[in-house]
Parts: sequence; structure tokens; C-alpha cells
Amino acid sequence: MKFSLKDIISIKDFTIKDINYILKESEKMEPVARSQELNQDMLGKILGMMFFEPSTRTRLSFETAMKRLSGSVVGFDQPSCSSTTKGESLADTARMLASYSDTIVLRHNLEGAARYIADIVDVPVINAGDGAGQHPTQTLLDLYTMKRVFGKIKNLNVAIMGDLKYGRTVHSLSHALAMFGTNMNFVSPKELRMPPEIIHDLNQQGVVASETENIYDILDEVDIIYVTRIQKERFLDYEDYLKIKGAYILNEEMLRGKDLIVMHPLPRVDEISIDLDYTKYEQYFQQAFNGVPVRMALLEVLIKKNKL
Amino acid sequence: MKFSLKDIISIKDFTIKDINYILKESEKMEPVARSQELNQDMLGKILGMMFFEPSTRTRLSFETAMKRLSGSVVGFDQPSCSSTTKGESLADTARMLASYSDTIVLRHNLEGAARYIADIVDVPVINAGDGAGQHPTQTLLDLYTMKRVFGKIKNLNVAIMGDLKYGRTVHSLSHALAMFGTNMNFVSPKELRMPPEIIHDLNQQGVVASETENIYDILDEVDIIYVTRIQKERFLDYEDYLKIKGAYILNEEMLRGKDLIVMHPLPRVDEISIDLDYTKYEQYFQQAFNGVPVRMALLEVLIKKNKL
Amino acid sequence: MKFSLKDIISIKDFTIKDINYILKESEKMEPVARSQELNQDMLGKILGMMFFEPSTRTRLSFETAMKRLSGSVVGFDQPSCSSTTKGESLADTARMLASYSDTIVLRHNLEGAARYIADIVDVPVINAGDGAGQHPTQTLLDLYTMKRVFGKIKNLNVAIMGDLKYGRTVHSLSHALAMFGTNMNFVSPKELRMPPEIIHDLNQQGVVASETENIYDILDEVDIIYVTRIQKERFLDYEDYLKIKGAYILNEEMLRGKDLIVMHPLPRVDEISIDLDYTKYEQYFQQAFNGVPVRMALLEVLIKKNKL
Repeated sequence: MKFSLKDIISIKDFTIKDINYILKESEKMEPVARSQELNQDMLGKILGMMFFEPSTRTRLSFETAMKRLSGSVVGFDQPSCSSTTKGESLADTARMLASYSDTIVLRHNLEGAARYIADIVDVPVINAGDGAGQHPTQTLLDLYTMKRVFGKIKNLNVAIMGDLKYGRTVHSLSHALAMFGTNMNFVSPKELRMPPEIIHDLNQQGVVASETENIYDILDEVDIIYVTRIQKERFLDYEDYLKIKGAYILNEEMLRGKDLIVMHPLPRVDEISIDLDYTKYEQYFQQAFNGVPVRMALLEVLIKKNKL
Repeated sequence: MKFSLKDIISIKDFTIKDINYILKESEKMEPVARSQELNQDMLGKILGMMFFEPSTRTRLSFETAMKRLSGSVVGFDQPSCSSTTKGESLADTARMLASYSDTIVLRHNLEGAARYIADIVDVPVINAGDGAGQHPTQTLLDLYTMKRVFGKIKNLNVAIMGDLKYGRTVHSLSHALAMFGTNMNFVSPKELRMPPEIIHDLNQQGVVASETENIYDILDEVDIIYVTRIQKERFLDYEDYLKIKGAYILNEEMLRGKDLIVMHPLPRVDEISIDLDYTKYEQYFQQAFNGVPVRMALLEVLIKKNKL
Repeated sequence: MKFSLKDIISIKDFTIKDINYILKESEKMEPVARSQELNQDMLGKILGMMFFEPSTRTRLSFETAMKRLSGSVVGFDQPSCSSTTKGESLADTARMLASYSDTIVLRHNLEGAARYIADIVDVPVINAGDGAGQHPTQTLLDLYTMKRVFGKIKNLNVAIMGDLKYGRTVHSLSHALAMFGTNMNFVSPKELRMPPEIIHDLNQQGVVASETENIYDILDEVDIIYVTRIQKERFLDYEDYLKIKGAYILNEEMLRGKDLIVMHPLPRVDEISIDLDYTKYEQYFQQAFNGVPVRMALLEVLIKKNKL
């Protein structure tokens, strides 16, 4: 089998072979995701959606992926619509929904929730973000976006900028990039540096990442700037936030003449100026779209064995 | 091409030919809307629903239209479910959803929102009501209801009754009726008369409409009474409201012996007595149903060129 | 015709023949409910969902039933999403949704709401719970669960335990079991005994049910223990509640060596210990799943005559 996983819980469960398999299958899904080809692989199949936290983009792209494949979705997208408000346990709710569906897509505020559910139910579980934990499908679509533009991931130069301390997305991403031997540059205010344990992990994987507070230090070297938002709540002193804020907003002038692309997991607030929206640098809208073919590929490989 | 529009933003964008095309196609859709015929034109297609204001009837009839055509719906029906709550711009949300879907149906509290989005995204945009602005699909289903009963729209005598000052629906409708050369009679309390600029527009279109405060003045002449609700909030003095209220409630006794139909965009509160519900006058429930074939016709013409 | 009803309002409307017909058809639906067989009977058909009260399990199992049959769902799952918030009457909302769909599934807080709506609209109405009234599809899936395990319902020994005074579910169930000549044992604190009028009805049906406060009295005799929750709000004196609570919680030790199954309409809070979850006694998760094939059978028989 070209794919080893029954559940999608953490990017750390993936082998390089698993990731490459998904990236290859995602590419085949693009014409279906773009509504240029009809695919009925999921006829009669049901995706069980358990979203205990709202997440428009993740939820809608999973729904879109399932429906483009002619499948259906049941479930809830906010805790108030679930019977946990009546005191039901997460395990009982999951067992119920699993018995109605062919896969569970779970978003939860508690780290570890997805693994816990995967151990309980029989159908495949996909982690759509569990608190400070993992969000593996985001990482896969990030990798797919890079591969799609550059034809490879290995040996790319990637700057990761913004909140590197609390950003779940960038922790998973840096782990995955290290698997491919990508060169990484971390750009953040000193208050929000990549945590030492992540740096340590990367070193273990044989990767040495540079760190800087100044994006200009590495602008000439990178193929990709991956931007994330800096939330003012992360600063004890609001003055400190105001001082650094401007240095982490990308605009067209900064990038003029550079040969690179800009990515962002979205939603953005103001960390990417809209003057980049219609330039060659923009890949963040494409990246949002890429969530659809990547999630289609995952649904296919997880539900396929049971295909009618 | 028999239909000139890429987006459905305002009834003022329509030519007579465009409107007639939609009315003719709507008729063909009736057996599908009634579930007497299976139509799979929208297999694999997705309607992207962006409802920043609740609107049961409009939302459900669009959903029904898409699903009767074997298509799917993704999106949100209240702002709390959208990522704008995380500070995302309307433009970014629309770009995202557009990349997941084959058409966007937008309802927004701000006038002009639909046109703004249509300029940004590549897929067709349908305005499902933007604040005090337009609600063109309501006007089309109103026209379809008239055509369906009388076989024509030209030369009908239509009374439009209720809140003519603030009623978005009746402004669009009167514009469209004028295109067909319909005779109009405006019936309202003086506080809620049709605005002078609308009257001026109608005159420009060659239509002279009568105005009265008394429905009995025109009961013998009209083919249709189009009723809208009068909201007490529109009156500075609650006593003024109480004084006029009764004169704008239709009941069976008032209409006895008359040869006319009653329409209403719904929901009604008490402006049409329920004793009219099972009479020959009632066309408001039929009108609500008519929203389905009309919206099916629109989805067909907008998405058709990309049909698989 | 093997099935006599146009609407599913109360289990009291069913003949034994009707119930047996549904149970037999439910069995045929199992492979489709389990996603082992594709069934497209509901292509182009729409279930209109009107849920004025939240109810995850009931809502999701109806949605799953319709979607496994290749049909679609439109509607709302909380009153805030309906136009009744704009003052529209229940009757008007129902008429609108009925004109968009092939069947209405209604959940409402007022007893009698389902019958009221069934008299107004043309499409079949399914009562998914109306206040203190009926919840007939729950009763059918309870019966199906018993039949599935024991191959029969007649002559089973069933203990019904918990809140027998206010529990809508157990009132309907006991009525239906009496039709089959099942032996019943009621187990409850004296404050929550089965109401005398229900006992009277059962006697009329020729059934004599035993009553006890102590589950141990009947543990050796019963094939099934049907558990429901005891809510502390039912007790005037919280001390009284604490005194009896423990006696109505089932656990593995209590059942050791017994030959019986445990059922529960779910959600449970703590009235069934989780140490029963992976034992031979557990039928409550199976019972939750059984809601899907039973509701598929109902949708089939109600919509079938109009099948395309």
C-alpha cells in the first residue's frame, strides 16, 4: 500500500512516502476541485463533521471536497448544536456520529482530542485542528502549494515569519519541511521566537534554521515567505507590540524585484497588504483553494477501501 | 445569447429580453421544482452561500433550487459562522468561497455589497438582498407569479399597498413593471408614500401611477394587490400607526366579488387575514414556491456554460 | 397497501401490521445505512427539516437516512434560523417549507404541533418529537432494536427503568410493547412512577405490568433493561434525589452473569456506567445507529408513491 495511515492525526505520523502519495493524488484531484471533471467516488458516502470550534475555511473546504466527490456531509459546526450541551461525553457523541458516517472530521479545543476519538471509533478520523496540538491537513496543503509552484520541496529556501512561538501551523510545517531537507529562516520579534524544543527537533532532523528579527536580512535568499499573524494579546506591554508591528507587515514595495512567493494560512487581518493581492507574489488565495484537492485526496485514500 | 448578464445584481441591469428569457426558463423548471422530473444538470456543482443576514425563505429556496438540480450547497447563513468574526475582510471571505464554488449567492446588510463582490471574484454572483439596495430574484419571482396567472405582464393593473417608502421589494418591482408597461396604483398611508425619485423614474419610463390612501378607491380596477407590511417603527407617533393600521389589512370580506389575486413577499404578520388563505385570491403561497423554479432558471443560465 | 399512514404523528396511529412493515423494511435498509450498498431512491428528493428545538441525534439520523438514500435536506435546526423570529406563524413557515420539499420532519416544543401541521400541508409530516407529546420514530427504532436482537418482540420481558413519570419516550414505548403482548416491569423511585393513566391504558390493552423501586427484584427475569435518565430537577428536595440516585445507575458488576441487554435512548449522562460499553450487554450504541435504517424505511414508504 502506498499510504500507511488509517487516521490523520498528526503530520508526525506521516512518512515521506505518505506525504508524497497525498501530494501526487491531490494534483489528480485539481480538475474535479475546479469543477471541470465529474467524480462520483463518494456517492452514498457521508462525512461526519464534529466542529467544537468554528473554522470557516477548514470546514468549508472539507465540505467542498466531499461534495465535489458527490458525497454528503452531516454533523455540526458549533458546540451549541451538539448534544454535549446536554452533558453527553465527547466519546459518546463521536460513537454516534461514527455510526452514521464513513469518516469523522474533528475540530476541538483540546489537544489530543483527535487521537482519543480515533482510538474509540471504527471509521477513519481526520484531525482538523485540536487546540494547541496538530492541524495536519493544513500542513499538507502548505506543502502542496510549495510543490505546485516549484515542482519540489527539497532544497527550497523558506522564511517563516510572524508568531513562531504560539503558531500551531508553523510548528507542524517546520517539522514537515525538515523531513524534506528544506532550508528554513525564522523571522519573528524576540518575544515570539520559535520555541527551543522545536529548534531542537529540527536539529535532530539534521536541519539548521537561521533566526532573525529582520525580514530584510533574508529577502534576497528565500523562495517563499510564509506569513502568520502576530496577535497583540501575546505582548504584556502594548507599547512593545506597537513598536514591532510594522516590521511584520509585507507590502509590494518591500518585495519589488525579488523572486519569491508569499503564503499565509488565512484569514489575514493586516499582515499582508492588499497591494500584493494581484501580484506575482500572491499564493495565499491559491493556497486556500489548494485545501480542496488535498482534502479530496485524503478522503479518497481513507474511504476508498470501503468504496461501493 | 439569449441572456446578457454574468451576475445578478440589480433588476435594472436586465433588459426585457433577459427577463423574458428567465420567465420562460422558469416555467420549464416547474416539474423539477415539484419533484415530478429528475434533473441532474448541477451534478458536482456547488453553490457558495454567503448570508450575513438571516433570511429563511430566500436561503431555503436557493438551496432547494440547487438541490433539485442535483447540486450541492456550502457556506454560512449567519455572520457568526463566517471568518469575518476573526477580522477577515468581506473581499477575502468571498475570494475563498468563490474558489470553492460555481456561483456565490450573497445576502448582506450593506447596499452595494453584491456589486463589489462581483467585481472581485471570477464566478457569477447573485444578489440575494443587499441592505436597502436590490433584491432582484424577488422581483423576478414576483413577475413570474403574475405571468403564470395572467399569461402576460403588460397592461395588467397592479395595486402596490403598504410601506412604499422603505420597501426595497416594491421599488424594484415597480421599476420592472414599468419596463413592461404595467399600470400601477400605489396605496399607502401618506407617511409611507412612494419616494418622489421612484415616481420620477417611473415617469421617465413612460408610466403614470395613481396614488391613494384608500384601497377601496381602486379595488374594482385592479388585477393584483401586492401587499407589504407596515412596520410600526416607521411612525414617530404610535397613535398615528394605530389610526391607519386597520386600513391596510386585507380580508375576505373586502375582496368578495372582486376578480383579482393577492400577492405578498412573505413573511406576513397580520396584513393579510388568514381567511384569504383558502380562497381564489391567494397567490402568496404559490409566489413563495415560485422562488424555486425562478432561482433554478438563474442557476442554470449562470452555471450552464461551465456545465460538465 | 401494507402501510396505512400518510403521516407519522403518534405511535398510537400505527396498527401492528404498520409497525411490522416498517421493522421488516428497516432490516432491508441496513446494508445501505452501513454504506455497503448504494441506494438512489431519493435522487432529487428533499427532506424539509423544521427543528424548533435542538436534537442532535434525531436530526443527524434523519439527515443521514435521507443522504444515504441519495436525497437532500433543507431547513433549519434552531428557531433562530427560522422566519418565526420575524413573527411568521408556524403554519406559514410549514406551508413554505412543504412547497419546497417532499416531506416535513418537525420537532417542536408544543404538544400537538405535528398533527396541526399535518392537517395543513400536502406532503407527509413526520413528528420528530413535539413537547410532552409523541416521538414515534424513537419508539420504532426501540422496537427494531429488540426485534433485531431477539428475533421477536412478543413475550419478551422488558424492564423500563428511570423517570417513568415525565419520560415521553417510555410512555410511547410501553404503549407499543403492549400491542405486541410484551411483559413489562417498571422500575423507578416512587416519585417518578408510571402515571396511572398509562397503567390504565396498558390494562385496557390486556397487559399487567409489575412495578418496583428495586432493579434487583427483576434482574433475573428480564431480557432487556431500558434505561432513562433521572433528572434532579424532578425532585423537590435535593436530598431525596441524592438518596435514590445510585440505585438507578447500571454497571457491569450488577449485571454479571445475567442474560440480558441494556438499551437507552441517549444521550446518557451517568445512568449507565461506561464499564458496560464494551460488554455483551451494550445495545445503546447499536440502538442509536438503528435510527438510521428505521428512518430510511419511513422515508421510503412515505415518499415512495411519488418516486421518480
